[in-house]
Amino acid sequence: MDAGYFLGLDLGGTNIKGGVVDDQGRPISSVSSPTLAELGPEIGLGTLKDLAIRAVEASGVGWEEILAVGLGAAGTLDASIGRIIDASNLKRWNGFAIAPRLAKILDRPTFLVNDANAAAFGEYWAGAGRMTESLVLFTIGTGIGCGIVESGRILEGRHGLGGECGHMTIQMEGGRPCSCGRSGHLEAYASVTSLVARAVEGLEIEPDSRLRSSWLEGCLSGAEIHRCALLGDPLAVRLIRETARYLAVGASIVMHTVDPDLVLFGGGMIAAGSGFLAMIREEIEKLTFPTAWEQTGIEFASLGGDAGFIGAAGWAKKAVNKMGVDGESN
Amino acid sequence: MDAGYFLGLDLGGTNIKGGVVDDQGRPISSVSSPTLAELGPEIGLGTLKDLAIRAVEASGVGWEEILAVGLGAAGTLDASIGRIIDASNLKRWNGFAIAPRLAKILDRPTFLVNDANAAAFGEYWAGAGRMTESLVLFTIGTGIGCGIVESGRILEGRHGLGGECGHMTIQMEGGRPCSCGRSGHLEAYASVTSLVARAVEGLEIEPDSRLRSSWLEGCLSGAEIHRCALLGDPLAVRLIRETARYLAVGASIVMHTVDPDLVLFGGGMIAAGSGFLAMIREEIEKLTFPTAWEQTGIEFASLGGDAGFIGAAGWAKKAVNKMGVDGESN
Repeated sequence: MDAGYFLGLDLGGTNIKGGVVDDQGRPISSVSSPTLAELGPEIGLGTLKDLAIRAVEASGVGWEEILAVGLGAAGTLDASIGRIIDASNLKRWNGFAIAPRLAKILDRPTFLVNDANAAAFGEYWAGAGRMTESLVLFTIGTGIGCGIVESGRILEGRHGLGGECGHMTIQMEGGRPCSCGRSGHLEAYASVTSLVARAVEGLEIEPDSRLRSSWLEGCLSGAEIHRCALLGDPLAVRLIRETARYLAVGASIVMHTVDPDLVLFGGGMIAAGSGFLAMIREEIEKLTFPTAWEQTGIEFASLGGDAGFIGAAGWAKKAVNKMGVDGESN
Repeated sequence: MDAGYFLGLDLGGTNIKGGVVDDQGRPISSVSSPTLAELGPEIGLGTLKDLAIRAVEASGVGWEEILAVGLGAAGTLDASIGRIIDASNLKRWNGFAIAPRLAKILDRPTFLVNDANAAAFGEYWAGAGRMTESLVLFTIGTGIGCGIVESGRILEGRHGLGGECGHMTIQMEGGRPCSCGRSGHLEAYASVTSLVARAVEGLEIEPDSRLRSSWLEGCLSGAEIHRCALLGDPLAVRLIRETARYLAVGASIVMHTVDPDLVLFGGGMIAAGSGFLAMIREEIEKLTFPTAWEQTGIEFASLGGDAGFIGAAGWAKKAVNKMGVDGESN
């Protein structure tokens, strides 16, 4: 018997990604489209429908073989009723019960899940965390997305705030301001945005850094800072080493609370390579109990930008299996 | 049919507590004994046996009605094989597979669980968290014990470090030294030990504080600092307010990671009363997302020093039910 396919959609503030995923977590197609968030959810539903049709067409799988739809979306959600509560990048969608509407349009059971949680579930199901039971994924970008998979389940939390680890306080006194309006959070130190901000601040003290010309040319980015660090620029080296430490502090907190098998780092920083990962590991060793650093895997994520829709599809698979049989199945 | 009884034991570095607990989490007896940790585990097993016999005798319940034994113990454990891995207060017990030995002596299935986790499970089963699915308990004493109950299960973690929230970093730069040898941890700021240490430091700047005479008389304690704060002593007021803030930072981190229904505070600080709890709540409001502080309960624990053995008994009940039927039962 054919085990069926699942459609994963990943609704971000800028783009929607989607694809058909097989029963083992392998993506059969991968398509994307601009979100046009400012046009609001009614028009957005049409975009999602079009993208779903394109994803299924591109996969060569028949619609009748698509068993369920997983929809990852940014922000705080009420997954139980499929509603977006508060999404800073999709403000016009706040309060919108998107999953039941999409379920009707696509005529399939549709499950809403936070996008960062979906990415973590994707890595657990079919990526770097395939062999584990519990993992925490930090995705480093403009902000820091995070998802926790614990004993094979997404830790959604009781108010949709499970795994909001970008907003853990790591510096309570004199902390850097965070995008959320508070301060001292992991995101305020270790996101790409804050890495660049720290570089600009650093240039005031070290004006001879190579980063100065990047800045003047308007191309000061996370990748550029990593590149200059590899060339030995002292400011860039310091910034990267500090970033490794900040990420290690974040990892240490989840290792002393959730205590997963594996901590994963994803996002553009993966391009910095194994040297950066080694730096993070070195800092973690200083920060955690021996049992934690000896036994917890510290790795890069492996699914890249597809993790979100793959994980959303996997979550939908888990949800329909749960509905269909007595007890959970994965 | 009688639903049976469970024996709970709580093995600490100083004392062992124990009692018979009914099917609903009500303690029927409560006894205790010095641990004499330095005599090692073989003699300790005898002490545990004697205490178990006294607990059952005091309860008036027959041995044949005791279905299982739960044993809470401090430190890092391998619960799956009932072994103590690393307990700083029970050093001679490190590596000792205590649960199978005790099971043989008492002729009952015996389940080992971390003592702070057991206390959290006790509050969940029969205390302040009775009506919730998920809670985090911080017990403030010499150190800070913590346990996480998530969806009705203890979050033990993959290496026995689940809920070691006393050792979350809250101040990564210039943090106070922690008892574990690292720095900047919650315990280094908010335990009773560190409250007293901060008071002594504060006396150097505010030598006119009422706390000075307490210190000279050798009675500077957490309770004394709370008392002087109520009398309006400026140093004591500042120390208590700071402690509330530190605990709020700890609460905010678990609210943005595990996102429980309820955060509980236990230990001697409960005696400080509702004013102190109100201060913690006020600080949490500044630190967390609105959804978190509006919807998460912030309360004192209700079982006091019995939480550990009650929770250990409850965990044993859950474990035997799980063994006896297909799937989990609570």
